[in-house]
Amino acid sequence: MTRTHRQLHLALFALPHGQLASAWRLPEIPADSTNDFREYHEAARIIEQARFDAFFIADKLTAGADGSWQYGPPVDAFEPFSLGGALAAVTERLGIVATASTTFQHPYLIARQVLALDHLSRGRAGWNIVTSYSADTVRNFGLDDHLPHDERYEIAEEALQIVRALWRSWDEDAVTWDREAGVYTRPGSVRPIDHHGRYFQVAGPGEFRRSVQGEPVRVQAGSSGRGMAFAAAHAEMIFTAQTTLESGVAFADEIRGRVRAAGRAETDVVIMPGFSYVVGSTDEEAHRINAELIETVQPEHILGSIRDVVQLDLRDYPLDGPVPTLPDPETVQGHQSRLAVYKRIAETEKLTLRDFARRVAAQRGHHQVVGSAERIADELQSWFESGAADGFNVMPHTIPGQLREFAEQVVPILQRRGLFRREYAGTTLREHLGLARP
Amino acid sequence: MTRTHRQLHLALFALPHGQLASAWRLPEIPADSTNDFREYHEAARIIEQARFDAFFIADKLTAGADGSWQYGPPVDAFEPFSLGGALAAVTERLGIVATASTTFQHPYLIARQVLALDHLSRGRAGWNIVTSYSADTVRNFGLDDHLPHDERYEIAEEALQIVRALWRSWDEDAVTWDREAGVYTRPGSVRPIDHHGRYFQVAGPGEFRRSVQGEPVRVQAGSSGRGMAFAAAHAEMIFTAQTTLESGVAFADEIRGRVRAAGRAETDVVIMPGFSYVVGSTDEEAHRINAELIETVQPEHILGSIRDVVQLDLRDYPLDGPVPTLPDPETVQGHQSRLAVYKRIAETEKLTLRDFARRVAAQRGHHQVVGSAERIADELQSWFESGAADGFNVMPHTIPGQLREFAEQVVPILQRRGLFRREYAGTTLREHLGLARP
Repeated sequence: MTRTHRQLHLALFALPHGQLASAWRLPEIPADSTNDFREYHEAARIIEQARFDAFFIADKLTAGADGSWQYGPPVDAFEPFSLGGALAAVTERLGIVATASTTFQHPYLIARQVLALDHLSRGRAGWNIVTSYSADTVRNFGLDDHLPHDERYEIAEEALQIVRALWRSWDEDAVTWDREAGVYTRPGSVRPIDHHGRYFQVAGPGEFRRSVQGEPVRVQAGSSGRGMAFAAAHAEMIFTAQTTLESGVAFADEIRGRVRAAGRAETDVVIMPGFSYVVGSTDEEAHRINAELIETVQPEHILGSIRDVVQLDLRDYPLDGPVPTLPDPETVQGHQSRLAVYKRIAETEKLTLRDFARRVAAQRGHHQVVGSAERIADELQSWFESGAADGFNVMPHTIPGQLREFAEQVVPILQRRGLFRREYAGTTLREHLGLARP
Repeated sequence: MTRTHRQLHLALFALPHGQLASAWRLPEIPADSTNDFREYHEAARIIEQARFDAFFIADKLTAGADGSWQYGPPVDAFEPFSLGGALAAVTERLGIVATASTTFQHPYLIARQVLALDHLSRGRAGWNIVTSYSADTVRNFGLDDHLPHDERYEIAEEALQIVRALWRSWDEDAVTWDREAGVYTRPGSVRPIDHHGRYFQVAGPGEFRRSVQGEPVRVQAGSSGRGMAFAAAHAEMIFTAQTTLESGVAFADEIRGRVRAAGRAETDVVIMPGFSYVVGSTDEEAHRINAELIETVQPEHILGSIRDVVQLDLRDYPLDGPVPTLPDPETVQGHQSRLAVYKRIAETEKLTLRDFARRVAAQRGHHQVVGSAERIADELQSWFESGAADGFNVMPHTIPGQLREFAEQVVPILQRRGLFRREYAGTTLREHLGLARP
């Protein structure tokens, strides 16, 4: 399928100092800057100037595996909605996607956090809908073990239903603002939702008027069977980890088929795989930079951080030995799709445990290209035109370093090729993504 | 007790368009501006320029009583932490106090929201610790009836213990940032909290490094017997509604006695009653403005909005008749202290129901002065010097209108009298308030 009539979309996936878990060790990162808003402000400035669609704020609800903080910062540098509010105040057009877990956050609270962010940004908010799988997270909320994988999605289904009902509990034209008559909203235009479900009881109505963009954008990243079913039914932007073009095409075809089967149009969904890269002025320079970056990785750090995904503490195994056999993804209640990616890497590439750790240190199971800006642009174009991607969740090894390189070197090539916007056409995230108003 | 050696403190209590529930009807308020951040940004600009200590963000977790949205906007225009993040990004020195309820928000989530806001603002955050009493709120979280008043405080005690433990789970000097050795935090300096309590189980540690100000400031507004006990034990800034200087002095004496009994110093607590006002160039003009403002009030709106406090739907009674007998505060599980204030007003002032509604429309049970800037400054000075207040939670009828008048007319008088700062001496909220680092 060719999609040259459309333009691709770009979001930034920002972890503290970049995706490389050891980025903080680099001279370019200011000391003690982990919880400093200026890094995020600068990243937002760079990508808004480059006309990105969105800034994506992940969330883990945990400091990580025991002792992992010895080797580097937890991946959450701020709570997503307070950071989102701050970014909304310093940007004009950029979309802001914030993560909230339906496993541990109440849908009434999620509904108003996302809609508040939407109003603060005048229609630029998205909600990344996640279920929480990590044992480290679960223990912060009083459970000894995590909920079964599929039940987490049942809860998510009901939570999403409540959130959307609250968002729509004010009609588009509810606010009449009739000063003379003293009528603020038209009678009957703001309604309780009276939700009585299996997991939640919520009376409503919501506290805020309807979103400028109709509804905030629904974002989802589940790539397991149940996750794909959820995404096909509900998601408008889908993040996914795909290591090869072939798996990317297969995933996108599968999703689009499921979207159609769910009675939705393919154009209701924007598929955005993660994209890890290192860019240099030449391919050689890029490889040299990548080698230097990877040299800073401490394998214990990475192996600790993926403990909950691989369901093994790989820190217990010799670094120069092989990767031990990872469990079958279907048998675990955790992050099934990411485990499948790691298992495939471990089994097909026959790496030592040390090299496996380095391999996942920055790309975290996503597709990666190391090379010149032209090579990177070629790769993005190839994925886009082959139908594997409607856009990309850009994962720079370092922020601002490699992010700025992408914005200044790669984006102009995409623009010259007509693949990416030179100016924002709309003002809302929904408009940036070409999604219909619900 | 005279306190002329100290300076008073000022916070802004900002409801949408001001404290007057009908403020939206005034020509000065732009149409459709309820969820527009620009109003809050402008308010923050005004009070930061006037050197206020803090911007206070309330939260009700409900759209209000059935149909109240017909007469005016719900009091929550944004979720407090997304708004707080936005305000942090556009201010430099102003403290930001955000409300979170321990009744319906999990302490792990509260801990990181407040600490994230603290880092975003570089040490300017406070947490207004509330318990939720409103039946309208309770129904949004799946309960048919609210929790007993005193049990809400038991939960709050445990939640606060968890939140503070999470804040302190990173030592002050935990982050070593040793690039060479790859040591991000000193071993043992970040610790799980392993909390196993009656209401919560939380493993920890928190996700963020220690606050720039040691810990965010703890703010509390309980004025019932149990509420005062909580405040005396834990609060650093206390908001209270007092209608007369005498009741203000009695409350402050009671609190200071309880603070000492709890083994804390009086200077560990800053008492800030709400202060409602209308200022004009003369007393006569102020009274004329006040009369015009009150004329816009719709009694049904106010009577609906206080239904949960007075435990009666006063909309069912004739507006020109007397206020029906309100229940004894000791017998209710809701907002006991506010009910006591309303009951006192109703019984001592012998108002019609219509005038009672107008009486509470803007001041909401707080002390109010209508007059010239000199008169208002005199009143603030009198409360401050008599020991009834260490500062005030300023409640303008309209924002920006009456807020700007206060900042431009009243604050300069306080500064000339040496009662209020001309410049910020510190950079954190804790420093503004003169509170010791924990």
